[in-house]
Amino acid sequence: MTTHELAKAFTALCTSGEFEKAGHQYWSDDIVSIEAMDGPMARVAGRAAVDAKGAWWYANHEIHSVKVEGPYVNGDQFTVRFTMDVTPKDGARMAMDEHALYTVREGKIVEERFFYGM
Amino acid sequence: MTTHELAKAFTALCTSGEFEKAGHQYWSDDIVSIEAMDGPMARVAGRAAVDAKGAWWYANHEIHSVKVEGPYVNGDQFTVRFTMDVTPKDGARMAMDEHALYTVREGKIVEERFFYGM
Repeated sequence: MTTHELAKAFTALCTSGEFEKAGHQYWSDDIVSIEAMDGPMARVAGRAAVDAKGAWWYANHEIHSVKVEGPYVNGDQFTVRFTMDVTPKDGARMAMDEHALYTVREGKIVEERFFYGM
Repeated sequence: MTTHELAKAFTALCTSGEFEKAGHQYWSDDIVSIEAMDGPMARVAGRAAVDAKGAWWYANHEIHSVKVEGPYVNGDQFTVRFTMDVTPKDGARMAMDEHALYTVREGKIVEERFFYGM
């Protein structure tokens, strides 16, 4: 599977709202997830930890809608834009606009890095 | 100047159509420009060579409109989305949709990497 094929398949699952399935299917066991923030969630490594981070996020946000655009490909990396309408638990409904940069090695995503619209 | 400030200023120039000024102002002398293609233009290094690549591009494309979205920031990197309506010389008018990933060191952009919508 080329990076282009993986990028298309991964993005198609995201477009269908199947974010967890997309991760389970295409993350490497050594996946590293990097957020644009300080603190303990800034860099999370390993499938179990990244899974737990996702589970926390889904449990603490109500997703009203997601728009997925991409993938955009270069070599062993690709990007996807996510525009989300979400309400954090105990927070105000808000628009999120982010780019995710994925790095692929041997047919699996080894790193996801999130960039926030400013 | 933080990466966030640089990203905002660079993107503002692009939004005004001042792409060459944005490059001249914020590229490092050692800027490396990476395209999602094979061949001699895949990796161009150094300000003079990247300038020449830009000059070639502008001479060979008529830009009808550009939409600039961003910046999206994470650490010392930021991304911008460019949606363009262009006609290549001797080619058909087309829509281009790309993400650019910029890496900053010591207040200058040392790498630009382009991802193409697929």
